[in-house]
Amino acid sequence: TSIHFVRNFSCSPASTGVDKLYPRHDNFSDRHIGPSAAQRSKMLDILGLKSTDELIRKVVPENIRLDRELNLEPPVCENEVLTRLYEITSQNQTWRSYIGMGYYNCNIPSTIKRNILENPGWSTQYTPYQPEVAQGRLESLMNYQTMVADLTAMDIANASLLDESTAAAEAMGLCYRQNKRSRFYMDAKLHPQTIAVVETRAESLGVDIVIANHKDMDFSKKDFCGVIFQYPDTEGNIEDFTRLVDTAHAHGSLAVCATDLLALTILRPPGEFGVDIALGNSQRFGVPLNYGGPHAGFFAVKDSLKRMIPGRMVGLTQDSAKNKCYRLALQTREQHIRRDKATSNICTAQALLANISAMFAIYHGPKGLKYLATRVHNGTHIIAEGLKKAGHTIEHAMFFDTIKVHCGTDRQTVLDRAQEKQINLRTFEDGTFGISLDETVKEEDMDDILWVFGSDSTSAMVAESMGESPQGSISNSGFKRNSEYLTHPVFNSYHSETKIVRYMKMLENKDVSLVHSMIPLGSCTMKLNSTTEMEPITWKEIVNIHPFVPIDQARGYQQMFAELERDLCEITGYDNISFQPNSGAQGEYAGLRAIMAYLASIEQKHRKVCLIPRTAHGTNPASAQMSGMKICPVDSDKQGNIDVRHFAKLVEKHRNDLACVMLTYPSTSGVFEEGVREMCEMIHDAGGQVYLDGANMNAQVGLCRPGDYGSDVLHLNLHKTFCIPHGGGGPGMGPIGVKKHLAPFLPGHPVVSPSGTSGPGATPFGVVSAAPWGSSAILPISWAYIKMMGAVGLRHATTAAILNANYMSTRLSDYYKTVFRGKYGFCAHEFILDCREFKKYGVEVADVAKRLQDFGFHAPTMSWPVPGTLMIEPTESEDKEELDRFCDALIQIRLEIRDIEEGRIDVRQSPLKHAPHTMNVVMSSTWDRPYSREQAAFPAPFVTSINKVWPTCGRIDDVYGDQNLICSCPPMESYSSPYLEESVSEESKEKIAA
Amino acid sequence: TSIHFVRNFSCSPASTGVDKLYPRHDNFSDRHIGPSAAQRSKMLDILGLKSTDELIRKVVPENIRLDRELNLEPPVCENEVLTRLYEITSQNQTWRSYIGMGYYNCNIPSTIKRNILENPGWSTQYTPYQPEVAQGRLESLMNYQTMVADLTAMDIANASLLDESTAAAEAMGLCYRQNKRSRFYMDAKLHPQTIAVVETRAESLGVDIVIANHKDMDFSKKDFCGVIFQYPDTEGNIEDFTRLVDTAHAHGSLAVCATDLLALTILRPPGEFGVDIALGNSQRFGVPLNYGGPHAGFFAVKDSLKRMIPGRMVGLTQDSAKNKCYRLALQTREQHIRRDKATSNICTAQALLANISAMFAIYHGPKGLKYLATRVHNGTHIIAEGLKKAGHTIEHAMFFDTIKVHCGTDRQTVLDRAQEKQINLRTFEDGTFGISLDETVKEEDMDDILWVFGSDSTSAMVAESMGESPQGSISNSGFKRNSEYLTHPVFNSYHSETKIVRYMKMLENKDVSLVHSMIPLGSCTMKLNSTTEMEPITWKEIVNIHPFVPIDQARGYQQMFAELERDLCEITGYDNISFQPNSGAQGEYAGLRAIMAYLASIEQKHRKVCLIPRTAHGTNPASAQMSGMKICPVDSDKQGNIDVRHFAKLVEKHRNDLACVMLTYPSTSGVFEEGVREMCEMIHDAGGQVYLDGANMNAQVGLCRPGDYGSDVLHLNLHKTFCIPHGGGGPGMGPIGVKKHLAPFLPGHPVVSPSGTSGPGATPFGVVSAAPWGSSAILPISWAYIKMMGAVGLRHATTAAILNANYMSTRLSDYYKTVFRGKYGFCAHEFILDCREFKKYGVEVADVAKRLQDFGFHAPTMSWPVPGTLMIEPTESEDKEELDRFCDALIQIRLEIRDIEEGRIDVRQSPLKHAPHTMNVVMSSTWDRPYSREQAAFPAPFVTSINKVWPTCGRIDDVYGDQNLICSCPPMESYSSPYLEESVSEESKEKIAA
Repeated sequence: TSIHFVRNFSCSPASTGVDKLYPRHDNFSDRHIGPSAAQRSKMLDILGLKSTDELIRKVVPENIRLDRELNLEPPVCENEVLTRLYEITSQNQTWRSYIGMGYYNCNIPSTIKRNILENPGWSTQYTPYQPEVAQGRLESLMNYQTMVADLTAMDIANASLLDESTAAAEAMGLCYRQNKRSRFYMDAKLHPQTIAVVETRAESLGVDIVIANHKDMDFSKKDFCGVIFQYPDTEGNIEDFTRLVDTAHAHGSLAVCATDLLALTILRPPGEFGVDIALGNSQRFGVPLNYGGPHAGFFAVKDSLKRMIPGRMVGLTQDSAKNKCYRLALQTREQHIRRDKATSNICTAQALLANISAMFAIYHGPKGLKYLATRVHNGTHIIAEGLKKAGHTIEHAMFFDTIKVHCGTDRQTVLDRAQEKQINLRTFEDGTFGISLDETVKEEDMDDILWVFGSDSTSAMVAESMGESPQGSISNSGFKRNSEYLTHPVFNSYHSETKIVRYMKMLENKDVSLVHSMIPLGSCTMKLNSTTEMEPITWKEIVNIHPFVPIDQARGYQQMFAELERDLCEITGYDNISFQPNSGAQGEYAGLRAIMAYLASIEQKHRKVCLIPRTAHGTNPASAQMSGMKICPVDSDKQGNIDVRHFAKLVEKHRNDLACVMLTYPSTSGVFEEGVREMCEMIHDAGGQVYLDGANMNAQVGLCRPGDYGSDVLHLNLHKTFCIPHGGGGPGMGPIGVKKHLAPFLPGHPVVSPSGTSGPGATPFGVVSAAPWGSSAILPISWAYIKMMGAVGLRHATTAAILNANYMSTRLSDYYKTVFRGKYGFCAHEFILDCREFKKYGVEVADVAKRLQDFGFHAPTMSWPVPGTLMIEPTESEDKEELDRFCDALIQIRLEIRDIEEGRIDVRQSPLKHAPHTMNVVMSSTWDRPYSREQAAFPAPFVTSINKVWPTCGRIDDVYGDQNLICSCPPMESYSSPYLEESVSEESKEKIAA
Repeated sequence: TSIHFVRNFSCSPASTGVDKLYPRHDNFSDRHIGPSAAQRSKMLDILGLKSTDELIRKVVPENIRLDRELNLEPPVCENEVLTRLYEITSQNQTWRSYIGMGYYNCNIPSTIKRNILENPGWSTQYTPYQPEVAQGRLESLMNYQTMVADLTAMDIANASLLDESTAAAEAMGLCYRQNKRSRFYMDAKLHPQTIAVVETRAESLGVDIVIANHKDMDFSKKDFCGVIFQYPDTEGNIEDFTRLVDTAHAHGSLAVCATDLLALTILRPPGEFGVDIALGNSQRFGVPLNYGGPHAGFFAVKDSLKRMIPGRMVGLTQDSAKNKCYRLALQTREQHIRRDKATSNICTAQALLANISAMFAIYHGPKGLKYLATRVHNGTHIIAEGLKKAGHTIEHAMFFDTIKVHCGTDRQTVLDRAQEKQINLRTFEDGTFGISLDETVKEEDMDDILWVFGSDSTSAMVAESMGESPQGSISNSGFKRNSEYLTHPVFNSYHSETKIVRYMKMLENKDVSLVHSMIPLGSCTMKLNSTTEMEPITWKEIVNIHPFVPIDQARGYQQMFAELERDLCEITGYDNISFQPNSGAQGEYAGLRAIMAYLASIEQKHRKVCLIPRTAHGTNPASAQMSGMKICPVDSDKQGNIDVRHFAKLVEKHRNDLACVMLTYPSTSGVFEEGVREMCEMIHDAGGQVYLDGANMNAQVGLCRPGDYGSDVLHLNLHKTFCIPHGGGGPGMGPIGVKKHLAPFLPGHPVVSPSGTSGPGATPFGVVSAAPWGSSAILPISWAYIKMMGAVGLRHATTAAILNANYMSTRLSDYYKTVFRGKYGFCAHEFILDCREFKKYGVEVADVAKRLQDFGFHAPTMSWPVPGTLMIEPTESEDKEELDRFCDALIQIRLEIRDIEEGRIDVRQSPLKHAPHTMNVVMSSTWDRPYSREQAAFPAPFVTSINKVWPTCGRIDDVYGDQNLICSCPPMESYSSPYLEESVSEESKEKIAA
């Protein structure tokens, strides 16, 4: 195949004569890496080691160690890197795009952009698994769910999915799961990328996709699990789907509607004509085009399907004081994802984008949204009217913001004029044009569109003749929406900038994020997300590009992709990267599908067995299941390593039907297993492929390369190792790296093909995301990180991460047992602390986790991969002082357990059981605990009134919430925003009068 | 004269036919103005009024009311305004500037830019007059003072001044005040703008400036109060001033050194050769060029002069619990500025910029700063060496970053090549060139400079021949700095980005700002500072321009100035604006000097009497004093108005020597005085001029125009009425508007003349700021505000501000008396609440102010203009809900006073006396107060654990601090940053071992 990448940038010159007098301006790696040289040597001392080299020799097996520096460009100064990136991205041309197809320009209110998207207090939080210190973003996601449920008129919505197309695939999966029928109808007028993604997903699920005009669909054989249609459809047409839905229901099929939130502010919503699932993209609510992503897909269902909804969902529950509060509902589906019984591997939301969209709705309110929608709709009517007058034909009479135009004049002239005005239109294969308007369109833009189509009239002239309301407008039709929406106070209270700023700040301040303290989430790598890396993601050259523009308008993006691909290949040892998967789980799925496609190409289609260690991430078996593989679990030995004998036995047993193994390396036990190279060889020997889960890549960069020791494909969590912030639960990015033999099978795209996925030799297995390069707009973060760190900096970061973990494990060793260690007694970049022995005193690992909140810390990963333990990953960005504080907190907690152990306090009375302690509890007039208020709230010298981060609710009652599932904003009377209190004046007046 | 402005932009077209179907996208004024239509009508009801028109008729005297809409462009959508501004500012050309002269390019670390400058939590705070809710920025300013004192090796520094040149003028004033001698030496090698500003200031003070080469200075007659010199000087030369200083001292003169902080990291500091005052610009510590400002000037003195230091100074003191904390020291000099005894009108610092510079020093630390300085110094040596080789002569042998070059080749060729490379050099009148390097200079920039001067060598080739350390470098000379600096832990602890982010966030969270609650500072107009207005101030087209570039490189700026001038003239009724004054007080001074210059021009130089109402801002008499006027106070009547009979008597008395009156309108009593037009006429009739203090312009915009009712000049506080944020105590902007007859006298500039201040007819009175257009870079804020609001929006804002004030005054009327009201019983946009009657129960107004902190509110202006009162200015940006909460808090406090009044609680035991209540107090195990913990911390239903903003110290003891003045960071043992705690591990180990 001719797949290759172009490296079209010049390396900075190597060290010149000027260096000794005039050295580089700055060294970013010193800013990124926490521990100073002095701290590092102190930590090595405590580990009894002489150097980090010695540490690495004792941690990373010799037979996989990389014996050279990575071949990357010399590091670029932080001071210069953005100038360099700007040179690249300014090659992007920001034409006006009226392409539509699910992506629309929009206006992100400055205050939301700055106070959420550009604010580390909102972008660096972890997924809200610790709800007591996450009430802010949980409330915001609840607002998002309420907004989606209201606008679609569905009963319940989730906290977002990756994009519209994968949401459609999830809907198809849900239908299949619900009634077990293996055929699924898709209306032909869905967006092409949606059809492609669903087809890809269906193939491996064994579902038969039938694409048809919805009027020709035949449900009578009761063999269709469901049907999906787009409303308004991809050409802009609005049709009445009531009969379709009714017919589907009458024959036991589910009805799924892909729709548009802005349209639904004036258009009869799908919930009102009975659909079971509504989904779409909430991008146009305040999130830029971003050359395809990240955006938040939405997903809403009827009440009867609520327990089948994929992804995360925020629900209401109560805390220990019986106060209402939020948490992720039905969470058992989540971290403990249903492994081989899973039908979805989704565990990512697009929290940050969903929060932006929710704030957009709050900022505008129902009236404001309706105003925007009406304006867009009227503008589209003006264009349609003008085009008709200029001799063109509009294909559909009923539309919202999109029209399909049969050209009545010379088509090439239209194209030439569009070129002249730098306007992108949608071009259909039949020679017609699509035009989609959006809220940012100005009068002069409409004039230009009219001119492009040869009209002599301006939009004002056209409008003049149209009266007060356009003929054929939605509001004059049966499609008009009559029901109310967004009536909750939260959507009707924060319309001045002052108020929404305070609302955003209040929510921000409820949550622990990296701006407060370390978040040592094992397997999630919460490292520094530096501002320099983050700056480009709001540059206009990055955000204002439609994903389906001609590729020569996105040359800057293409160059950045090529550079990042080159660097990631060098770091991992692979030959090619696909950026399409926009989450880690998506990457797993794409990687496995590539393996299957490859196996099919060499006539080994029958190979379907996938070996997965029992300690693997839950997404691994879920992804394998979705890919149509047969999962075969591999046992672990007592050291937490793969039981090599069992492994060998399984390989032998499946010699003829083995497809692959899925390894996590270093293992989820926090150890570099010695036998990885051998295991890979055994797999290859048996005709299988090796999939590597890249979640722990942060332990390997610069030290060893998965592509070198035998793996064929891996996914990278760019939001872990490569500095994309977690965003409070998304966006992530899960590109996959492959060896050359797998490259021809990387995912393609039906509209714009990523380089190498079309043309001779390319045989993509299908499409996994709506956008060709996934969440393109956040790739500059990883690009900048690698450029600034350089080979030496990256290696240094990895060793610091490993040193930090080993230092903590050692400092804690008198108090907690580290469950697994490697051959020489060291862990990798994370380690598992045993809390199981405390159970006999009545102390659960959750008590330890919640008590950590009183110290201002977010708990580590809990009970995974081993129940009753904590998995700690400090990362390289935390310095020794912070590690010591975290250790001190854990030690203090151990002492509190000792108090129980030795009978000084009853476990039920202990601060561990009452943790976390809220302000209200500690400041209450009543205090009858055997420990002091100070011990409750300021349990260590470093927790002071100055830096205390308070949990804003007491311990969450998960069971109560799951039994009483409420996933949209609670009614007004229970709504507790302080900005909605009635004034106390009347009461006060009475009092003073008395 | 030919003074005029060019209005070179086209108005948006008026409403077109498209509007009814396709109206404007958004209306910013709805976002800016807090109260909704429903709230406004509710408030009018309570006032017993039918409409806002009726309110305005009852508030603004008929004979000054504007009977038309302001003639401004139609409002620009928020959605579009930045595109429009970008079109303007992209005309600015960002050449590389090596001009020097006190301004140097620098690199603002991204994380500091984003987390401070672009963060409303840092930019929207008020001046820290309420230290209990301002410990964050007080600590940061203390860091700034420590940095300045350390680097200059002086004993004590202030929290910044406006710029280097005004700092020099303050130094001159200090010298004059200290020893009463009326001559002052200036070395000829000072920056020209410094000489000009000092000369201007000296003229009105009656000080005689003598400019000389320092070697020729003669102190023997003991008639010089002091001497100032630049070190390194404006040409870059470094000389030994020890003898000069000693000679000056020997003859009783003070020695002042203008210097450069970056140079001082490697250069012997002025404190080590005995100077009394060191000053300069801290811009190059992380603050961009900004086309001249805002930047922070610094000012440091010997211990013996500490009580004469101008401006604000943060000092250490203790709180009610005897804990160390910060507050503005010697504050009596401040708000209660010494009126007619003042010798300085300075009451502004550049807090936001000083904070950035302090963080820059913390980020780099002493080693990092020295590294940057050495690098710059070496680069300059490479250039010098290269130029020498190319046949040029370098005038001075000893330099830091600046060289003066005698051209050995054709001068025009150098100029042409510089043009080709887009490089700005300093050009001296004698044909020589100046080159100043800075930290942002890259190797290729040095290559370009060498090429410009005809060198065949690259900088690498030059460096190759230079060995390890340049010959003649500072470190090889007697000028080398040997002393340590920035040894305090704060400068040695936060070098990783993770750590400095957390430090900045911790400080931010200590302070109340507009992101939390209203800050109703009477006379200070704390309104919304919207993100859209703020965005441009960090655009590269705005920030990367040296103030002394040729004017055609700054066309974008010039157009923005012209547009803003036009709009402000229309709003105020004046003919011209000067943007040079960079604070309100500076504006007062400039306005009065323009009046005096005008009077001199019509042979009325003898007119020196300035009438000033006793209720005026303290800066008024101070400015008059500084301008050389004789102050004559005017009495007030019982209604708080000017006593018109007394006024008439004084006018009559001074018919022959009256220069002007200084009026504040509406008055500082919060009332539109009826007789303002008549008073203006009386003054004019007596040959005087009318100066209007624009502090209360927010009550007038769109309702009346000072230029219409008889004033001749006013200053505008753009940081009050026109949305520049207060920045926690600066920057502000105080441009002045003048009638045509005063225009020729507006301030000029010795390097770049603002339009109209040079050429025929222009006779500027002098120069007031270092930069020609003051703080140019923040003018886009006001520009955008006016453009987005339009005439209707601005008028609407003013009426909403007046409505809000009257609503609050009325709602509070059963509990507090409003001291002054207008003719019909209404106040203007602010009102004064009487707290004097509580004194008889032992309750002071300060108790009320401090108790407000427990409600999460910043206190209003206290005891000004009437002792024992609170002046409340809600502004238009706060909605009724927030006003009600503030009223509720005040009512609750009134009830607590009632408890004392009626004997239910002893005043000494009351929450009022113990306010504010800290977390430590409320959560302490010990609680022996007669009121509950809840009453202490959550005194109203709207104060909850979710939104509570805690004061981080108890009530400040001002007297203690002033008696024990400490104005740099306290030593390590008393340093309380939580990030420096030693680990508790040893203690814990012992405990568990036991």
